[in-house]
Amino acid sequence: MRLEALRAEVCEANLEVVRRGLVLYTFGNASGIARAEGLVVIKPSGVPYDTLRPEHLVITDFEGKIVEGNLKPSSDLPTHLALYKAFPAIGGVVHTHSRYATAWAQAGREIPCLGTTHADYFHGPVPVTDAMQPDEIASGYEWNTGQVILRRFKGVDPMAKPGVLVAGHAPFCWGRTPAEAAHNAVVLEEIACLAYHALTINPEAGAISDALRDKHFQRKHGPKAYYGQK
Amino acid sequence: MRLEALRAEVCEANLEVVRRGLVLYTFGNASGIARAEGLVVIKPSGVPYDTLRPEHLVITDFEGKIVEGNLKPSSDLPTHLALYKAFPAIGGVVHTHSRYATAWAQAGREIPCLGTTHADYFHGPVPVTDAMQPDEIASGYEWNTGQVILRRFKGVDPMAKPGVLVAGHAPFCWGRTPAEAAHNAVVLEEIACLAYHALTINPEAGAISDALRDKHFQRKHGPKAYYGQK
Amino acid sequence: MRLEALRAEVCEANLEVVRRGLVLYTFGNASGIARAEGLVVIKPSGVPYDTLRPEHLVITDFEGKIVEGNLKPSSDLPTHLALYKAFPAIGGVVHTHSRYATAWAQAGREIPCLGTTHADYFHGPVPVTDAMQPDEIASGYEWNTGQVILRRFKGVDPMAKPGVLVAGHAPFCWGRTPAEAAHNAVVLEEIACLAYHALTINPEAGAISDALRDKHFQRKHGPKAYYGQK
Amino acid sequence: MRLEALRAEVCEANLEVVRRGLVLYTFGNASGIARAEGLVVIKPSGVPYDTLRPEHLVITDFEGKIVEGNLKPSSDLPTHLALYKAFPAIGGVVHTHSRYATAWAQAGREIPCLGTTHADYFHGPVPVTDAMQPDEIASGYEWNTGQVILRRFKGVDPMAKPGVLVAGHAPFCWGRTPAEAAHNAVVLEEIACLAYHALTINPEAGAISDALRDKHFQRKHGPKAYYGQK
Repeated sequence: MRLEALRAEVCEANLEVVRRGLVLYTFGNASGIARAEGLVVIKPSGVPYDTLRPEHLVITDFEGKIVEGNLKPSSDLPTHLALYKAFPAIGGVVHTHSRYATAWAQAGREIPCLGTTHADYFHGPVPVTDAMQPDEIASGYEWNTGQVILRRFKGVDPMAKPGVLVAGHAPFCWGRTPAEAAHNAVVLEEIACLAYHALTINPEAGAISDALRDKHFQRKHGPKAYYGQK
Repeated sequence: MRLEALRAEVCEANLEVVRRGLVLYTFGNASGIARAEGLVVIKPSGVPYDTLRPEHLVITDFEGKIVEGNLKPSSDLPTHLALYKAFPAIGGVVHTHSRYATAWAQAGREIPCLGTTHADYFHGPVPVTDAMQPDEIASGYEWNTGQVILRRFKGVDPMAKPGVLVAGHAPFCWGRTPAEAAHNAVVLEEIACLAYHALTINPEAGAISDALRDKHFQRKHGPKAYYGQK
Repeated sequence: MRLEALRAEVCEANLEVVRRGLVLYTFGNASGIARAEGLVVIKPSGVPYDTLRPEHLVITDFEGKIVEGNLKPSSDLPTHLALYKAFPAIGGVVHTHSRYATAWAQAGREIPCLGTTHADYFHGPVPVTDAMQPDEIASGYEWNTGQVILRRFKGVDPMAKPGVLVAGHAPFCWGRTPAEAAHNAVVLEEIACLAYHALTINPEAGAISDALRDKHFQRKHGPKAYYGQK
Repeated sequence: MRLEALRAEVCEANLEVVRRGLVLYTFGNASGIARAEGLVVIKPSGVPYDTLRPEHLVITDFEGKIVEGNLKPSSDLPTHLALYKAFPAIGGVVHTHSRYATAWAQAGREIPCLGTTHADYFHGPVPVTDAMQPDEIASGYEWNTGQVILRRFKGVDPMAKPGVLVAGHAPFCWGRTPAEAAHNAVVLEEIACLAYHALTINPEAGAISDALRDKHFQRKHGPKAYYGQK
């Protein structure tokens, strides 16, 4: 029963990033995890979104073995699994090639925290990984994509930075649920767009003060959060 | 009765900025004031726009105390109140994180008056505030956001510059009515976009002449305005 | 009878530039001329496009005197009249504040002929006027906007360059009919966009060769044109 | 029978690039080839897309002689024919003036392989041709446009680089079918957009490693491709 709800939520997260213009053709995938059941629900590989329905999703165990579904899972599944294993608080992962976030990933630059829109979601810069090494690419590439992310997150709280730019590739985002992961992917694209334009206007633009960054992040996420309805 | 009309107008101002593409998710809020009644009508905090209806709006007094409504008001309410108190001619306030205007705010740069589209609405550059100080952020942050705007408007006629960029944050706009405030927010975004592109083409581009600026502003706003129908 | 057809065509030209995303609110206007009848049909000033219908258009004589219609004509009417008087081959004029073309106008730069898309419509750079002088602005401003265009077109064939950037303002385009003028306004926006991005990629990008420019312009416009159906 | 299917597929390829926003007015054309029958199906010249139906398409032989259809074929037909003759593996050609790809063509710059989105489709940079010479332009211009492409592809596998930028003009793309050619045209526009933004963020951004480029290209195209469903 819970799995049926997760199926629907993962399908909706996949469609949300399409609806928001983050996805061209089949570039992207969303997943969700049922930790108690030991299962992950993910988009099938290379399937068009127009006709995607909850029953098309693939269910695997934590090693990526297919438990249910007639289609192959997204080729990025091992990256999702690596994140789920390392970040126990997350319940959903979303990967897109959204335009501005991908441009920053291709530029190999972290996104500096230039404004409160950014600080509402990311506590400090959006990190970028190192480039992957030939041996990491040659074998277990998608799993190693997860590892290069985790190396970058050593000592970083993934709930205070719900996304990352994989250098030369594109962003991965996460959240407590698939819906939150999708929401964070949409917001990351917006943040990336704002920073792009701000730095074009003023290449010397600096990060907002720590005080302003903390204020905004905690207004939305801290124990004393007061944004939105309770 | 008048309050019901204001409710509808504030709801419509909120929806107008969404319709025009200035708002992602719940980033933004519009309000209106009934000065005689001592009341302000504002969007509830963090509520999706898709289902926003006039009855969801929150009504407060001039100190922000809720008079009517089951939802919490926008967390930016104190900024709106500060503007209403200081600018007696305004009847509506609109806050968005629209892309180009926010990029200028994040860049910490005022928008120079490079063309007649700008001069039709803003008499001279669109001002940017100073960065807020740690103590202004630590307590009464949203009220102090209003104060940093008002410091910037010392000696400036708010009806000749119906908006401002809060540094590292985003724009606030106003007008004689909520509809006019929303209209000004949409136009500010357009002005910010035009200036962004003009300065990329020619970083040395200068402001239009005072004569051309005055002509256009007064063609629309002066006592001898002749644009539009009477 | 002919006037009724012209009314419909001018209304459609106004709506076409809206449909193509060149117009925000009421920023822009299209007109058409019935030379034999001595009449001009133009959009009323400051009227929303959503509800614009042929019967709302204003008909004036060549001096701008209203012959038919209850609304005030566009305040830019004298600019249109100046163009009609000087360019006998044109039958329609369209003025917009479209984003890229206006950015070039604000930058005060002519648009170089960087590609065949440009050469298909404009034989050489899109010209930009001089800035207007204080006395030209102080009185007869809109008529003088026409004059500053005409000074720039001294010795230039208006049918080989169907548009201009008024410095610090925005483009005016024309064509043999209102529909063609609107088409040229849409294409000018596209050309302006392409040149903006090409020069950002390569600031040293130069104009295409005279041979390629002539080939494309004449493929569409010369006596031996062979593009499209006959 | 097969020809009827090809007609429908070519019509759909033409509409796909319109739907994806790559085409303004009539700027662009798609074709397909029936090699066994010795026939090519192509869009008619200058005909609006709104009303385009399979029966409007023009069928010619490999020399461009019309075999069926009442309309003139696209003026770019000889370029398509040159590509079909030289690249025996392709079944469709698509030409557009899409914004970012055309900007790169106007800039006269090849698009470096900055990320995996690019490497999924193009094995290495997207090439740009030399400028065409006056005599190539003066006579047989469209056929010579094909020749300047083919000179650039000497020693290059067209299936590993399914598109090209014609300097000062715009892209041509191809694929095993008209649908694949259209898909590649859409992806090229996206790649061009990503590279534009990445290089604006970081003008020193370099190509991804050969290992990463090969991995992604082969994940989708090599004999061991594992992306998508079988």
